[in-house]
Amino acid sequence: MIKAYATKEPKGKLEAFEFDPGALSATEVEVQVEYCGICHSDVSMINNDWGNSSFPLVPGHEVVGTITQVGPQVAHLKAGQKVGIGWFAGSCMTCPNCMGGDHNLCPDSKQTIVSRHGGFADKIRAHAEWVFPMPEALDFAKAGPLFCGGITVFNPFVINDIKPTDRVGVIGIGGLGHLALQFANAWGCEVTAFSSSPDKEAEAKEMGAHHFVASRDPKEVEKIASTLDMILVTINVPLDWEPYIAALRVKGKLHFVGAAPEVSSAIFPLLAGQKSIGASPLGSPSTVGKMLEFCARHGIEAVTEEYPMSQVNAALDHLRDGKARYRVVLKNDF
Amino acid sequence: MIKAYATKEPKGKLEAFEFDPGALSATEVEVQVEYCGICHSDVSMINNDWGNSSFPLVPGHEVVGTITQVGPQVAHLKAGQKVGIGWFAGSCMTCPNCMGGDHNLCPDSKQTIVSRHGGFADKIRAHAEWVFPMPEALDFAKAGPLFCGGITVFNPFVINDIKPTDRVGVIGIGGLGHLALQFANAWGCEVTAFSSSPDKEAEAKEMGAHHFVASRDPKEVEKIASTLDMILVTINVPLDWEPYIAALRVKGKLHFVGAAPEVSSAIFPLLAGQKSIGASPLGSPSTVGKMLEFCARHGIEAVTEEYPMSQVNAALDHLRDGKARYRVVLKNDF
Repeated sequence: MIKAYATKEPKGKLEAFEFDPGALSATEVEVQVEYCGICHSDVSMINNDWGNSSFPLVPGHEVVGTITQVGPQVAHLKAGQKVGIGWFAGSCMTCPNCMGGDHNLCPDSKQTIVSRHGGFADKIRAHAEWVFPMPEALDFAKAGPLFCGGITVFNPFVINDIKPTDRVGVIGIGGLGHLALQFANAWGCEVTAFSSSPDKEAEAKEMGAHHFVASRDPKEVEKIASTLDMILVTINVPLDWEPYIAALRVKGKLHFVGAAPEVSSAIFPLLAGQKSIGASPLGSPSTVGKMLEFCARHGIEAVTEEYPMSQVNAALDHLRDGKARYRVVLKNDF
Repeated sequence: MIKAYATKEPKGKLEAFEFDPGALSATEVEVQVEYCGICHSDVSMINNDWGNSSFPLVPGHEVVGTITQVGPQVAHLKAGQKVGIGWFAGSCMTCPNCMGGDHNLCPDSKQTIVSRHGGFADKIRAHAEWVFPMPEALDFAKAGPLFCGGITVFNPFVINDIKPTDRVGVIGIGGLGHLALQFANAWGCEVTAFSSSPDKEAEAKEMGAHHFVASRDPKEVEKIASTLDMILVTINVPLDWEPYIAALRVKGKLHFVGAAPEVSSAIFPLLAGQKSIGASPLGSPSTVGKMLEFCARHGIEAVTEEYPMSQVNAALDHLRDGKARYRVVLKNDF
């Protein structure tokens, strides 16, 4: 049996819940959870915001733990290894995207908390291709958020071929944004943080921002017209995107990783400056591996607030109230 | 004196007009016009649709002709050479974009018919970097349209790094689109033409389309979901872009080259498939050179209807009436 915290209905409180996971499949890995971050997507799934939740629902998809057993076809991982698991828990391994290294774009991917039970539990399972050995240099208590929030903002640097000579902006300094600032700085870029909370300026600069722009004032954004090569949008609320498109240099990219509802733009500003608007989900397994190595090399980690897993409802309320600075992590106390 | 056809006011008829171009500047080239294509942008400038027209206005920016004289600093071109001139007539040559090979993105570029007189004339001038020697293999009577319409649709293949193994869609089978179909086919791609005119199917297929989709019917577009790597939008009218974004494969690009007014999209379809929306103006001088070589190698040319330049008003009316199949070219009969 696996012990977990689950909600039985949309927007419900989490309660103790046990379930029998059945036999481990040939390509699966079972992991004893040590830590599990809380992501805004966990709240969205609890709320059934996306209409794909099934109940009882065990949230949690930023797991760090120790392998307890591996399926008979898993050759590259073994019991006792420290590993991480994120949003994805499996890919078909044979479609053109998987075969091309883009397992994150597999149309038949399994997602850790969609029709599966997640990491607010003592154990979790995922298919081996989405279970990542942890570099020793990382602080395991703070590494969980790398597997969802981290890879979500690391991936755009890779897929957009960002250069150390580029200038990068980050909109939203939260669970994703505070990691994006660190990545951008370590990548060698000039980094501009955009936030609607002026009180975050000092911390944003500690995390790697060279410049801070108070984004509630469009005039402040207008001042930096034609200066940035990529702007990462980590927020999930609508904004007037035109000043941000204007803030891009020629060939610049406005790149969405948060679930903002929609984007619109006049064509002319895009056309005249050869600019583009893109978006991406989490990165591929290969990119997760690169991210972990990069974090270990540069000492990049999430800024976390730790709660015992038994206090999961208080931890969720803290996040819902917008008070997380910057990522809440649960420590397994089953 | 240069003899030309000009309109004295917005939306006016073109009339005979003479002007003294003054001394040739050090980096300029003067060309005896032999042929000049008519582009929709000429009509937009005649109408002052973009608010940047100055009158009297001499339209025309798809010129093929013979150099009559070169400025003293022009070393790589000489009188008697056959050349082409397009939308751009000069770049600053020293800004980071020019220095990086992107003269088409120079913020101080000179545009052939913006505050300058264009190619509906016996002679035209442009700075040497935007005057292109013509490969002998091209039919000069049909090559003018390559210098605006052609390079506009060739450039996206280069900047988006389109591969011969890709599948490319072209929306709009007109002056730009009929060249885009030829480029896409010669590039090695599988080519889908989208048109609101079902009667263009046979011709679109002759020009290189493997498939034809009647774009007035959203269900026809829905049928090809997740199949295309790039869709080139050559039209300048608004469409519902969602079915086209859905028609892109993962990593696909919806790319605008026509002056469509605006684009909007929900973020989720972009994010889930790592898709993007981009746009570009005409290509760089280096890319124009590659295009001319590619056209000569593959026998790509505009399908043209020829009018004597003295019949310019009739030619313009033919274009305005949507009857051009597919590009009108004026032959200098001054």
